Amino acid sequence: MEKRRKSTVVLAYSGGLDTSCILVWLKEQGYDVIAFLANIGQDEDFEAARKKAESLGAKKVFIEDLRSEFVEDFIWPSVQANAVYEDRYLLGTAVARPCIARQQVEIARKEGANFVSHGATGKIIAPWRIPEFYNRFRGRTDLMEYAQKHGIPVPVTPKAPWSMDANLMHISYESGILENPKSRAPADLYLMTKNPEDSPNTPDDLEIEFKNGVPVKVINEQEGMSKDSPLDIFSYLNDIGGKHGVGRIDIVENRFIGMKSRGIYETPGGTILLKAHLDIETFTMDKEVRRIKQGLGIKFSELIYNGFWYSPECEFVQHCINKSQENVEGKVQLSVFKGQVYILGRESSKSLYNEELVSMDVQGDYDPCDASGFIRINAVRLREHHRLQGFSSTKQ
Amino acid sequence: MEKRRKSTVVLAYSGGLDTSCILVWLKEQGYDVIAFLANIGQDEDFEAARKKAESLGAKKVFIEDLRSEFVEDFIWPSVQANAVYEDRYLLGTAVARPCIARQQVEIARKEGANFVSHGATGKIIAPWRIPEFYNRFRGRTDLMEYAQKHGIPVPVTPKAPWSMDANLMHISYESGILENPKSRAPADLYLMTKNPEDSPNTPDDLEIEFKNGVPVKVINEQEGMSKDSPLDIFSYLNDIGGKHGVGRIDIVENRFIGMKSRGIYETPGGTILLKAHLDIETFTMDKEVRRIKQGLGIKFSELIYNGFWYSPECEFVQHCINKSQENVEGKVQLSVFKGQVYILGRESSKSLYNEELVSMDVQGDYDPCDASGFIRINAVRLREHHRLQGFSSTKQ
Amino acid sequence: MEKRRKSTVVLAYSGGLDTSCILVWLKEQGYDVIAFLANIGQDEDFEAARKKAESLGAKKVFIEDLRSEFVEDFIWPSVQANAVYEDRYLLGTAVARPCIARQQVEIARKEGANFVSHGATGKIIAPWRIPEFYNRFRGRTDLMEYAQKHGIPVPVTPKAPWSMDANLMHISYESGILENPKSRAPADLYLMTKNPEDSPNTPDDLEIEFKNGVPVKVINEQEGMSKDSPLDIFSYLNDIGGKHGVGRIDIVENRFIGMKSRGIYETPGGTILLKAHLDIETFTMDKEVRRIKQGLGIKFSELIYNGFWYSPECEFVQHCINKSQENVEGKVQLSVFKGQVYILGRESSKSLYNEELVSMDVQGDYDPCDASGFIRINAVRLREHHRLQGFSSTKQ
Amino acid sequence: MEKRRKSTVVLAYSGGLDTSCILVWLKEQGYDVIAFLANIGQDEDFEAARKKAESLGAKKVFIEDLRSEFVEDFIWPSVQANAVYEDRYLLGTAVARPCIARQQVEIARKEGANFVSHGATGKIIAPWRIPEFYNRFRGRTDLMEYAQKHGIPVPVTPKAPWSMDANLMHISYESGILENPKSRAPADLYLMTKNPEDSPNTPDDLEIEFKNGVPVKVINEQEGMSKDSPLDIFSYLNDIGGKHGVGRIDIVENRFIGMKSRGIYETPGGTILLKAHLDIETFTMDKEVRRIKQGLGIKFSELIYNGFWYSPECEFVQHCINKSQENVEGKVQLSVFKGQVYILGRESSKSLYNEELVSMDVQGDYDPCDASGFIRINAVRLREHHRLQGFSSTKQ
Repeated sequence: MEKRRKSTVVLAYSGGLDTSCILVWLKEQGYDVIAFLANIGQDEDFEAARKKAESLGAKKVFIEDLRSEFVEDFIWPSVQANAVYEDRYLLGTAVARPCIARQQVEIARKEGANFVSHGATGKIIAPWRIPEFYNRFRGRTDLMEYAQKHGIPVPVTPKAPWSMDANLMHISYESGILENPKSRAPADLYLMTKNPEDSPNTPDDLEIEFKNGVPVKVINEQEGMSKDSPLDIFSYLNDIGGKHGVGRIDIVENRFIGMKSRGIYETPGGTILLKAHLDIETFTMDKEVRRIKQGLGIKFSELIYNGFWYSPECEFVQHCINKSQENVEGKVQLSVFKGQVYILGRESSKSLYNEELVSMDVQGDYDPCDASGFIRINAVRLREHHRLQGFSSTKQ
Repeated sequence: MEKRRKSTVVLAYSGGLDTSCILVWLKEQGYDVIAFLANIGQDEDFEAARKKAESLGAKKVFIEDLRSEFVEDFIWPSVQANAVYEDRYLLGTAVARPCIARQQVEIARKEGANFVSHGATGKIIAPWRIPEFYNRFRGRTDLMEYAQKHGIPVPVTPKAPWSMDANLMHISYESGILENPKSRAPADLYLMTKNPEDSPNTPDDLEIEFKNGVPVKVINEQEGMSKDSPLDIFSYLNDIGGKHGVGRIDIVENRFIGMKSRGIYETPGGTILLKAHLDIETFTMDKEVRRIKQGLGIKFSELIYNGFWYSPECEFVQHCINKSQENVEGKVQLSVFKGQVYILGRESSKSLYNEELVSMDVQGDYDPCDASGFIRINAVRLREHHRLQGFSSTKQ
Repeated sequence: MEKRRKSTVVLAYSGGLDTSCILVWLKEQGYDVIAFLANIGQDEDFEAARKKAESLGAKKVFIEDLRSEFVEDFIWPSVQANAVYEDRYLLGTAVARPCIARQQVEIARKEGANFVSHGATGKIIAPWRIPEFYNRFRGRTDLMEYAQKHGIPVPVTPKAPWSMDANLMHISYESGILENPKSRAPADLYLMTKNPEDSPNTPDDLEIEFKNGVPVKVINEQEGMSKDSPLDIFSYLNDIGGKHGVGRIDIVENRFIGMKSRGIYETPGGTILLKAHLDIETFTMDKEVRRIKQGLGIKFSELIYNGFWYSPECEFVQHCINKSQENVEGKVQLSVFKGQVYILGRESSKSLYNEELVSMDVQGDYDPCDASGFIRINAVRLREHHRLQGFSSTKQ
Repeated sequence: MEKRRKSTVVLAYSGGLDTSCILVWLKEQGYDVIAFLANIGQDEDFEAARKKAESLGAKKVFIEDLRSEFVEDFIWPSVQANAVYEDRYLLGTAVARPCIARQQVEIARKEGANFVSHGATGKIIAPWRIPEFYNRFRGRTDLMEYAQKHGIPVPVTPKAPWSMDANLMHISYESGILENPKSRAPADLYLMTKNPEDSPNTPDDLEIEFKNGVPVKVINEQEGMSKDSPLDIFSYLNDIGGKHGVGRIDIVENRFIGMKSRGIYETPGGTILLKAHLDIETFTMDKEVRRIKQGLGIKFSELIYNGFWYSPECEFVQHCINKSQENVEGKVQLSVFKGQVYILGRESSKSLYNEELVSMDVQGDYDPCDASGFIRINAVRLREHHRLQGFSSTKQ
């Protein structure tokens, strides 16, 4: 790595052992270090982290509350897209990274820094990919030794035998004892959600109101509670989901670089929103638009997972999905109970649902004869196929 | 409708008011009627239905137990495909129809019948699409009157204010009071699954073993229970799922003909299998094969829903999906509790999961430097994009 | 069909035998008929048609020049999409229908008419689908007889042994002697394009300038010719393409209703534009955006072909494609000769092409080591696959 | 790079300056070098290359004629897939690489070699990505100097101001003066195809017979010529295509690594086959199977282009495409003239084309009333959409 005397680097600092060592090591390499700690909803003693960074020699420390913009600019688009990776993972970590990176680059610009410690573009220093660094620190022991030598406070509580990534949207757990894909996650692992075995024996019923495919209000009539700012809505859904043990999954997923990895996730609020949004979307969106949008949503999820939030294709897909959400509005009633979300009903002034049309008692302008024609025309092709192949659907 | 003296028609007969009236009406029109009643797992007094059909003048009555072939030939391919329509509905009705139709056509062939009363091909009589019929019977009242006049036994229990379709895979409920998309489903509607509020307070833990993407064994160690035939496996999963209230959904879906319709479904065993199969599939299948197969699975689901099981494209898609399942084998451990299925762990000799590769403690042959190269090459395109556009990811 | 005394119907009138008979027949049925003849570039004696319609009893006759809006509102979006059905057909007929229908509905509104004779919505009278009509007129002979009886002028020139659909974009030929898929199209069939065997022995070189993915100027330096209105551009490309025999195809295609049909098409200007647009688009559009847009373009083509131009999904897809064209601008140089279009070069201020980056002489910031990392990371997954499968790429 | 004394490396040797220098340099590094030269149809003095390799110190020289297997195992699957990258490039270079790599690995195995100089798997030495090599040889001048110093014969003819890749399927030209995307390709660049301006003034008419989607016979009646082995068929199509100037394109394409690159290609035989295969495929394949297969073909093309021929997803896609070709058989008549291929007609015993069904004179079992039903059912959804949106298709 090319060294520059007194270049400034904005380091995404967590307060933990790793980034503390990196902070000191970067100073050793001759950099001025600005520590940046994003508040994206993780449970953290931010003031302690600030003092620690300062004591380790950070030139400046930025601690920024990004929770509102995390919800509005990153979680909401994912809700609109029904973004789910490999049919299960709600992308809580992947969706937070571009939020942090955006702010980190912003600070680097304002502060005239030359480097950021990671992110999506520009000059980047990634110590874990630099031979001088990763050859020196081959494991936790090396880090501990380095920490002791440089007066870096070492965590006193024993480290959990897994690693963890927490934010407003989710907590993920992986590696350590979880690496064996057969081992069960210990019961005390989960921090955001109650064990459904211990969760309340009565459900909470909510009504979520959507506009443009994003929630604009959540009401809990029993509690007489109503929330209408994005952060409040999402936090409240986290509370309710967490209280009832919603959104736990244990999956093996495919990393971008092609290897498989096992992760445990809890995403309480996101899971409630996914179900509610799916409901109101199908209620208000044309069938064929939905089919096309479904494909775009899968693409969007892959792009987020692979770290391509800031890419031309992701911008393009987001623009298209956004368009599809114009009429996705209305209210969804649902019940949250013992790890599950039950849709109870929905209503919308933009619905394409036509009660008269569905009714079996009123025939309206829907003529059963039309169905015959529809079926016969659809069968033209099938008849030709069977003419050639012989009909082979009966048991062999 | 063209009448033929003493033509024979194979009628899919349910024993209910509608098909009883149709049976009599068809005889009025001059047909010999063979009644066919498929046992696909619905709760039915088959012998009573047989007697009723005979008493109404059916020339022959066939009651056939199709449950095993329903599971093996129709449910299993849906499991392999992770077949889900519009992200939620597991297709329990749609997947039963080709099973029934296949047998009905088979009977028509053996019996030399000229018509079947519905199905996917050939000469079909569909009274509800024939003006002579639907103009005569404009509602339930007309049917009741006709029944009384012709000595057709009329159901004594009052009809539930919704309609229902039941088989081994699911029960669906729709129309009547459910047509209002905002009305909640009554608590006593569900017949296959217990209300999670009343379900056991301790989970059942299962191990499901897969081969070629279909379950070959299910074990419940607590109960010392093991099942290994397709019908036994599926029935047992229905029992366990039903006991714990698994697989209830309330959705508005898009019908093939373009209108929206509200349905309530309970699919206990199918829901457990979907989750287990998703897990073992991602564990054993290459990432990129999975992406392509995911698209094919969505296509397969649409084809099933739209009634195209017997079509060249569905045969083609099924062939492709089948190929993708060759290595989908191994065991999934899961817990069923209060309406939810929790994956606990999995193992497979065909897994592409490489514990050494994921480990953060062992670097193996995975060089962090490679990641830098990978990232820089991926960024070539993004840099060109930003060169032109200017970097616009910061807040506006 | 329900008859109304003195209801008014707007009939899409061509001046030919069919629509002349329909005009008279509609009057017989008690309608007031407004004849509407769209000029979309077909070769037609419009004044003769007007007189004929009037003499047959049309209450009003509208002859409207839709050529400019046909090019701008219908052909241009198809160019942006690279719209090609089943890899070959440029959709000249399908793209004209919504243009005509839009105007016909517009006239019906202005004139307070109750019916249009076909189109995408509303009250529609389609005589060829009405039993009273199609049972009376079972072939050309019946029409001729009816014509003679009602004083409808009968064409004196013998009808070509095929049918034809002509507009500014293309002429299609089908049915009659062309129905046999093995029969060659006769040499004198083509009206828009010269036989390449007889076309000039020197090429015409053009430069086409694009903005937002549509042509804004075409220059032929040899001829000192420059065109810059949509209609002029497209007409000029038709002239040049026609002169050199460009855009003839003979295909069997799949109709919406599922049967296969053989068609001969000539689309001179459209073919030149397709090639030029493909070139400038790939030159200026990000690779991954292009992949997504390619899929949307295929969808768009199917929608147009199937008559869904005015549908929510087509509006959605068009919106997305439109977005993708924002930077598709620049100039393409090409040569037209003997049925073929040769791209010669291109330039754009919005190009993502980076000459320095491609150069083999300058290594720039592209490090060959990165490629190794990129390749090794891409191989992680392949190695795992081969670990399990054994490497089986060698000859068996 | 890790050096091993007397390790053996199989070098893909071309006889040119680059690989000659590499051969000598590898010996300098202490390797035994086996030179391997694949004959995949390029114009080469193989015996001269053998002598040169021997004189430079190759331990063994393998020159292998892979032309037949190149056609059967690599070109034929591409024909089945209609493999075209970014709508235009027929992948002549990309499809040859796995063919060469397969044989190179085969030789390495038989000879017990430890390394191959490139390819898809295993231990690979790629000098142009090794710093020791690419830092030493920064341009052609360095190579020339090294060659003179080590007695490596230096080409006497001046190098063309572009680079070239030739095989049986195509010749590609790029870099040098072609790097400027606006520069026209010089007229004397093309080696496989005649300039259409100078090509014959009379067409050649061919009949190509397909089975399983690959050509099994080509007949030129005028010439009384018939070919029926894969290599003969492809070579003959190259001759005819080359004679008439078929298959020249000039494109800017997106490389795997994300940068854009300009290439000129000539693919005479491949272009004829693409058009013929598209024709017979649509003639014999079900419409909906075709739609799915079209998507798989696009995927297949991307995989080939990106070097993933030997990958699980490519094997999967190939298996699916193969299945789709089972009924793709019959004869296509076509004419080759002045750079263009004109389809004239086709016939097949497996065709889904039904002449009676298309005919406008016979109504057969196709009832116009059915079309009304079909249209009305398709319109159910559109009516609902317009009910909400208001009909907005008229001009604003």
